Amino acid sequence: MAENLPMDEEEKQAIDECIPIKNFERGTVLLREGQVAKDSYFNLKGCVRHYYIIDGEEKTTAFYTEGESIASLSSYVNKTPANHYLECVEDCTLAVLNYDKERELYGRVKGFESLCRASVEEDLGKQQQLLAAYITKSPEDRYLDLLENRPELLHRVPQYHLASYLGVKPESLSRIRKRIAEKK
Amino acid sequence: MAENLPMDEEEKQAIDECIPIKNFERGTVLLREGQVAKDSYFNLKGCVRHYYIIDGEEKTTAFYTEGESIASLSSYVNKTPANHYLECVEDCTLAVLNYDKERELYGRVKGFESLCRASVEEDLGKQQQLLAAYITKSPEDRYLDLLENRPELLHRVPQYHLASYLGVKPESLSRIRKRIAEKK
Repeated sequence: MAENLPMDEEEKQAIDECIPIKNFERGTVLLREGQVAKDSYFNLKGCVRHYYIIDGEEKTTAFYTEGESIASLSSYVNKTPANHYLECVEDCTLAVLNYDKERELYGRVKGFESLCRASVEEDLGKQQQLLAAYITKSPEDRYLDLLENRPELLHRVPQYHLASYLGVKPESLSRIRKRIAEKK
Repeated sequence: MAENLPMDEEEKQAIDECIPIKNFERGTVLLREGQVAKDSYFNLKGCVRHYYIIDGEEKTTAFYTEGESIASLSSYVNKTPANHYLECVEDCTLAVLNYDKERELYGRVKGFESLCRASVEEDLGKQQQLLAAYITKSPEDRYLDLLENRPELLHRVPQYHLASYLGVKPESLSRIRKRIAEKK
C-alpha cells in the first residue's frame, strides 16, 4: 500500500526494512485466541480467515483477500489477548507490519502515518457496512451480496466456512443456492 | 478528545475555530439516507442513534453516548450518499468536525492527525468486536453484555429501539428480560 507514497531512497529502505514480505503456507495460524497481536498484515496474495471458537464451534466472521488489511485492532492497539483466530486458507503472501515498527515508520517516512490513517478509516467504513448488513439483511441477501461483490470468494473457501460466515448451517446454504439457481 | 494534546495558543485557537461545539435538540436528524456526511462528531453529552430504514422498518445498529466518536465513515471519506440515519435520541452536545476542517487541522495542529488515527483505530477495534458479537452471540447474550458494559443505556433509549438493536421483536426483549430476572 506504501507504493503510492512519493519516497526518497532512505524512506524506501526504511519501508523495506520494517515491512518484510513473507510467504505463509495454507493452514498457517497467524494469530490464536489468547495471544496478543503484535503484527498486522497487508494481503498481497491469498486468503486469510478470521474466526472465533464458541462452545467448540468455529464461527467465521471475515475472509481477507488481495488488497485488504488484516488487523486484530483491539488486541494490536491495546496489547490485550485476542479473542479470535487468523488462519491462511490458501498459500499467502503478506506484508507484515509489526506494531513497534509501524510507530517507528511514522517518524521515518513522511506521509506514512497519513496513509495508515486513511487505510484505517476505509476499513472502519467497510466494517460499519458489514455490521449493517448483518443486522439488516437475511443470510440469503448477504449471499447475493457476495455473489455480486466478491464472486471469486465463493470458489476459494470451503462451503462450511462460507455457511458459518453467513450465519447458517451448510444445509441451509445449499438450499439458498438452489433457490437462487431456480430464480435465474 | 483534543484536550490531551500539548498545544500552543495558536493551535488551541485553530481547534476552537475548526471544531465548534453545538447543541442539538432531541429528535434532530444529523444525517439522512441519501445525504453525503460532511461532518463527523464527538459526543460530549447525550445519545445519538444510528439506524437504517429497510422495507419501511427502522433497524437500529448503534447508540453513541458520551466520549464516543460518531462518523459515517464510508460516506464521510468517499463522499458517497449515506445509507442510514443519525438521530439525537436525547438533547445532545456534540463537537462537530467538518471533513475539510479536519484536513486543515492536520496541517495546523501538531499531533492532531496522530490523535485522529489512534481514535479511528480504537473505533475499528470496537467495531470488529461488535460485529463478532453479532455473529457469535445470541440476542440474550448481547443483552447481558449491554447490562454489564452499558447498563445506563437500557434506561436512556426506548425499548423498541433497544429490541431493534438486539435484532429481536419488542415482545422477545420482554421475554429475555423476564428470563434474566427469574435467573437472578
